Amino acid sequence: MKFSINRQAFVKALNDVARAISSRTTIPILTNIKLVLGEDELVLTGSNADISIESRIPASDTNAKLVIDTPGGITLPATFFINIVKHLPADDLQIELDGMRALITSGSASFNINGQDIHNYPQLPEMEDAQSLKVSAAQLIELIAQTKISASTQESRPILTGIHLQLAGQSVKAVTTDSHRLSQRIVTLTGTDDQVNANVIIPAKSFNELQPLLEGKDRVEIKLSANQAVFDLGNTVFYSRLLEGNYPETDRLIPTESTTEMTIDAGVLLAAIDRASLLSHESRNNVVQLVLSEGKAELSGTSQEVGQVKEELPAKTVVGEDLDISFNPDYVRDALRVLHGKTVELKFTTNLRPFIVIPEGETDNRQLQLITPVRTF
Amino acid sequence: MKFSINRQAFVKALNDVARAISSRTTIPILTNIKLVLGEDELVLTGSNADISIESRIPASDTNAKLVIDTPGGITLPATFFINIVKHLPADDLQIELDGMRALITSGSASFNINGQDIHNYPQLPEMEDAQSLKVSAAQLIELIAQTKISASTQESRPILTGIHLQLAGQSVKAVTTDSHRLSQRIVTLTGTDDQVNANVIIPAKSFNELQPLLEGKDRVEIKLSANQAVFDLGNTVFYSRLLEGNYPETDRLIPTESTTEMTIDAGVLLAAIDRASLLSHESRNNVVQLVLSEGKAELSGTSQEVGQVKEELPAKTVVGEDLDISFNPDYVRDALRVLHGKTVELKFTTNLRPFIVIPEGETDNRQLQLITPVRTF
Repeated sequence: MKFSINRQAFVKALNDVARAISSRTTIPILTNIKLVLGEDELVLTGSNADISIESRIPASDTNAKLVIDTPGGITLPATFFINIVKHLPADDLQIELDGMRALITSGSASFNINGQDIHNYPQLPEMEDAQSLKVSAAQLIELIAQTKISASTQESRPILTGIHLQLAGQSVKAVTTDSHRLSQRIVTLTGTDDQVNANVIIPAKSFNELQPLLEGKDRVEIKLSANQAVFDLGNTVFYSRLLEGNYPETDRLIPTESTTEMTIDAGVLLAAIDRASLLSHESRNNVVQLVLSEGKAELSGTSQEVGQVKEELPAKTVVGEDLDISFNPDYVRDALRVLHGKTVELKFTTNLRPFIVIPEGETDNRQLQLITPVRTF
Repeated sequence: MKFSINRQAFVKALNDVARAISSRTTIPILTNIKLVLGEDELVLTGSNADISIESRIPASDTNAKLVIDTPGGITLPATFFINIVKHLPADDLQIELDGMRALITSGSASFNINGQDIHNYPQLPEMEDAQSLKVSAAQLIELIAQTKISASTQESRPILTGIHLQLAGQSVKAVTTDSHRLSQRIVTLTGTDDQVNANVIIPAKSFNELQPLLEGKDRVEIKLSANQAVFDLGNTVFYSRLLEGNYPETDRLIPTESTTEMTIDAGVLLAAIDRASLLSHESRNNVVQLVLSEGKAELSGTSQEVGQVKEELPAKTVVGEDLDISFNPDYVRDALRVLHGKTVELKFTTNLRPFIVIPEGETDNRQLQLITPVRTF
C-alpha cells in the first residue's frame, strides 16, 4: 500500500470513522482503524461491534488529492494514528507500508507505526434481502431528537434502550419509553415514492453518532435487513445492529381524554422548570409540584435542607378541574427542550395518571411527550 | 438586610468572588458566600483559607442599580445561591432577610434559602505594616505566566509550590523550580515611583484565580505583609497567604556558558515537540532525543510498542560541538508556549547538564527557562 493525500480531507474522513471507534472494547483490534486502498479509492472503516462506519475517498475527489501508487491495506491504532495525522507539518502526507509497519511522511517529519493485518479485522455485515427507502436528513434528525430522550439507559430491559420504528407505506412512527415517560413522533415521508413495511428497534445510542454525520446532508438512504440498519450518506455509510425482541404495545398507554389543560410557551415553562429543579435536585426525591386552580398555575420546588422556590407561571390558558400534581422536572425539561420555540399544551386527568405535552393544536399524537407523575403524600 | 440590584452586575461580582470558593473545604462555612450590606455598599466575600476575594458594589455604581433599604448581612450556600441568581427571570432582584433565611424575588419567582450567621465566617486578615507598590496588570500577568509553569505541584516540598518574588527598588525577580526545571523572569516596574524591598513566596496556584481577575485591568496595587499578599484591583481585592520558609538559592543553578547553541522559531519547535511527544507519551519514560551535528538538528521520539518519529528541525542556526541529548518534551513544550511568537535560543553544555531556553538576544537571564536533561543509555 502506498498513497499520498491532502491532510485536511483525510482528517475529516478519519474523524467521521472515529465516531464508531471506542477505546473500551472487548475486541482489541476494534481500537484500530482499517485502511484499504483499492485501484481508485481509499476506504476507511471503524467499528465498536454495535455500530460501524465506513468512509470512502475516491481518487476523483479533487479536494482529497488522493494519489494511489500501490493498493493494499492495514489496520492502525486509531486514536494514535489520527492524532499523528492531525499534528503533521505539511498540507499533504504519504503513507507507505513495510510489512506490518506504516511509514507516514509529511514535510520533514516521518513516523513509523506498528499496525495489524486487515484479515484479523471483522467483516462488515452483508445486507441481503434489505428493504430500502430514501428520507430527508432533516426529517430523520427531527424524528430522532424528539424520541431519543425517552429511551431507557438501563440495560435491565435492553429492548427499551431502542427507538421503535414502524414503517407503513410512507408513514414512519417512532416510539421510545423508559416506562416512566414516552415519546412518539409520526412523520409522513416527503419527496419519496418508496413504500416500506417494516418494524425495527434501533439502539438509541447508535443515533448519538449518526446525528452529527447527518448534519448538513440532504437525503439519506436507509436499508433495513433482519438484524442491521444501514444509513447510506453517499461516501459515508453507517451500520447499526438492531435490537431483537418484541417492543411493548404503547398506544394503549396514551390517554385519550383530559380534564385539566394548560397552554404555555415552551421556553417560558422550561426556564421555570429549571429554577424549580435547582431546589428539587438538592432533595432526595427530585420532585416539583404544579398547582392548577382558578385559571392560575403555580410551580414550586422544595428542599428540606436548603429552601424553597415558588412561582406563578405566565400560562396562556388554564382550564378544567383543579389539579395538584407532582413530577420529575428532568422529564418535563427534556420534553420541553425538543419542543422549544413552540407553544405547548399540557393535558392532565388525575394527579396519578400520565399527562401529555404536545405542540398547541397538534392532533393524532404525531408529536407527543408523555410523563408519569410522582405520587406524593 | 434588604436591597434590590441589577441581576447581571450582581452575577459578575458573584462570579469574581466564587473563584475563591471551593466545595472541597474542611471548614463548612467556607462553602458559603458572605453578603454584607452597609449604608452605601454591598460587600461580597469568598474564601478557601488559602485565598480570599472581596468584591464591593457601591450604591453609586449606575450599572448595578443597588438600592439599599436595610443594612445587614448573611452567608448563603455559594454554588447554589449563584445558580439561583443566574436563573432568575427578571433584570433585577430583591433580597430580604427573615432571620437566617433569605427571600429572593425576581419577576414572579420567589426563593426562600436557608443561610448562616456572618459571625461564624472567618475574618479576613488585617494588613498591618504592609509595604505597598503599584504595578501594571499586563506586566504582572506576564511575570506570572512565564514562571508559574515550573512551580512544583507536589506537596512533598511545599516551598517549591510557590513563586519566589524578590523586590529590590523597582526591579522584581520571579523564580520557580520543581527541581527538574526552573523559570526566571526579571522586570523593571514601569510607570511607578514605588520602591519596595521584599522577599516573599506566593503559592503558584493562587495565581490561577488571580490571573482572570487581572485581565483587562490597568494597574494593580500589591500590599505585602509578613504572611499575606493582597492584590487590590479597585472594587475587587484578592488575598493570598504566603508560604513560610527559605526559598533555595537558584542563581548558582543557571549555567553561565554554553558549548552548543541552536536558534529556532518557538512555534516551529513547539509543533515538532508536540509530534515527538505523541510517541514519547506512549512509552514508559516520556523522553525525546535531540541530535545536533554539523549544523543540523534532528528530533526523535520512540515507543517500543507503537513506533517511532524522526524529524529534521528547520533551525535558523546550529553551532558548536556535536550533541546527543534527551529530555522530557513536556518541560520544553511549557517553556516554548510562554515564549510563543519569538525566536528562541537553546544553549547546551553536555548532555548531562541543564540547558536553557531564552528569547533570541535576551541577556542577563531576564527571561529564562532551564531544563534538566534525562540520562539515557
